[in-house]
Amino acid sequence: MNPKLADDWLNTPIADTDELFTQFARKRQMQLTKPPESLGRLEAVAIHLATLQHTQKPSIDSVFITIFAGDHGIAAENVSAFPQSVTVEMIKNFVRSGAAINVLAKAQNATLEIINLGTVSDTSALPIVRNYNLGPGTTNFLYQPAMTADQLETAMHAGHDAIERIQNNPNPLFIGGEMGIGNTTSATALACCLLNILPAQLTGSGTGLDAQGIAHKTRVISEALALHQHNIDSPLEALRRLGGFEIAALTGAYLRCAQIGIPILIDGFISTVAALLAESIKPGCQHWFIYSHVSQEKGHRLVLDKLNAQPLLDLQMRLGEGSGAAVAISLLRLACQLHNEMATFTEAQVSEKI
Amino acid sequence: MNPKLADDWLNTPIADTDELFTQFARKRQMQLTKPPESLGRLEAVAIHLATLQHTQKPSIDSVFITIFAGDHGIAAENVSAFPQSVTVEMIKNFVRSGAAINVLAKAQNATLEIINLGTVSDTSALPIVRNYNLGPGTTNFLYQPAMTADQLETAMHAGHDAIERIQNNPNPLFIGGEMGIGNTTSATALACCLLNILPAQLTGSGTGLDAQGIAHKTRVISEALALHQHNIDSPLEALRRLGGFEIAALTGAYLRCAQIGIPILIDGFISTVAALLAESIKPGCQHWFIYSHVSQEKGHRLVLDKLNAQPLLDLQMRLGEGSGAAVAISLLRLACQLHNEMATFTEAQVSEKI
Repeated sequence: MNPKLADDWLNTPIADTDELFTQFARKRQMQLTKPPESLGRLEAVAIHLATLQHTQKPSIDSVFITIFAGDHGIAAENVSAFPQSVTVEMIKNFVRSGAAINVLAKAQNATLEIINLGTVSDTSALPIVRNYNLGPGTTNFLYQPAMTADQLETAMHAGHDAIERIQNNPNPLFIGGEMGIGNTTSATALACCLLNILPAQLTGSGTGLDAQGIAHKTRVISEALALHQHNIDSPLEALRRLGGFEIAALTGAYLRCAQIGIPILIDGFISTVAALLAESIKPGCQHWFIYSHVSQEKGHRLVLDKLNAQPLLDLQMRLGEGSGAAVAISLLRLACQLHNEMATFTEAQVSEKI
Repeated sequence: MNPKLADDWLNTPIADTDELFTQFARKRQMQLTKPPESLGRLEAVAIHLATLQHTQKPSIDSVFITIFAGDHGIAAENVSAFPQSVTVEMIKNFVRSGAAINVLAKAQNATLEIINLGTVSDTSALPIVRNYNLGPGTTNFLYQPAMTADQLETAMHAGHDAIERIQNNPNPLFIGGEMGIGNTTSATALACCLLNILPAQLTGSGTGLDAQGIAHKTRVISEALALHQHNIDSPLEALRRLGGFEIAALTGAYLRCAQIGIPILIDGFISTVAALLAESIKPGCQHWFIYSHVSQEKGHRLVLDKLNAQPLLDLQMRLGEGSGAAVAISLLRLACQLHNEMATFTEAQVSEKI
């Protein structure tokens, strides 16, 4: 079954990029006072941003990090190294600015938004948090679909709306982060389903399972896939049956960014699976993706490879929250500054290659 | 022959690091609200800096980038893709703030110093540049030692003095950069000599040689090693016979940093060979090294491996000038901020791992 979403916003086409500005940017990189291509990936990033921003002076002027949080019914199957209460406890930590993403957002001068789609306990009393109250977490997808069609639609729309709120800012960059105990189980099941890969190849330690824990998690994912797989005929249905509220919201946010032309810096494993979903739902989406890092989560490299993604960083991180992407903001800014501010061979009267 | 350096500053011992602060820092990382080790290399960097700075709050408060420039007699053998005039032309570009390292230093709020040890044409008339006038470049080491003992001593002392000028700043970090057409040939010869590796394994394209150019460069290095190798009985003599003024100055700067306790962020291939020299001259030096990146220059990974170095970045850069290290400053700052500013599980009342 392909869930019928009442909204037609998913039909909006992906925004155009402009190859003319790719050519301008490539030409400029060849004229700058350095051996050709000697800035490596920083050149590629500047050229990519120039293409997306339709400009000769690419620039990251405002960065928005949205953390989508939600609980997972599948957590009842003991698939995480941390108790389910940590989802809400970490939302409280975000509110009090104690988490890694708070420190990084502040250091990078990025705006941080916290959205709770639905958790076991209520966070309505907390300041700052935007609450959707979709339910006390998803349903345990070992037995039933994780979401109803309504829940899926609302969660994806929450992502859409997060992007609508930032769209009028100058040269924006979007980072989606996530928090949800159990969500590597959901993301792994989704990746296995979309890419037709066996769980044993993708299932990793998440927040820190040992080998026995990973073996158990692999069995849970295999059983869940056996239950659902023959009923899944679209990426949206995969998302409804195996996903999480926050993964659906991330997917919606990425789709909306690609529709209205906001570059996206993709974070770790969960974010990359949401990126895979967005690309599966609307092919072409991925032109708007910049991949920040490869994480230590086992399946990340493989999913990145399937997207032909070349992540910028490999810092052996595996934290989520958008943290890897938040670190990589520095690289995007430096890439733009080098592109815009270096002198050309002609300006500097430096001899070119023999 | 081991060159007799008149100065005895090389006898100063390497500064102590403090394992007690390693333990404090490790313990704190385990208490922060994240899965253990989930910040990967950023945790390791914070712990390393805490150890070097003898503190529970590691911090990078002042960054000094010194570019050492010099010409190379070996450039007469057509071992570079760029003409020798580019060394001085790039010094002028540094003075006018047009080079990559200018843009990066400004973006990172780092102080940039330009030191010309000796080039084919004179730069005394330029503002800012500190000139040593050691000669119109080194002697062509295909036929004779690159430097006299006096030149070696003065060049190394120039590095020493650059560090003396910065030592009283708060929590300093030092980055050495280099500019010198022909200097990958010199650095490759040095690495082959110190590590007993054949030139064919290490010789790369430098600023952009094609396969034929690399083959020629490899032959030049092999012939030079055949001439000098049996006369080399110490790292200093290797440096005198095969080195460059700027490589000697970098080595002196690294040694002085390690003696007085200033953390060093190592850049690319040339800088790593200077680091290898410093470690060979004074074992223990390398405790003060943080390796910023692995470059595209063929021999870099192998020299890093010999130093048991784990570079932070792989951005496919190969520019020199200290540029890779200048990019990595961001990672060191973020690592410190995360270490110092995140909440602990107790502070945030977040449940720990099951």
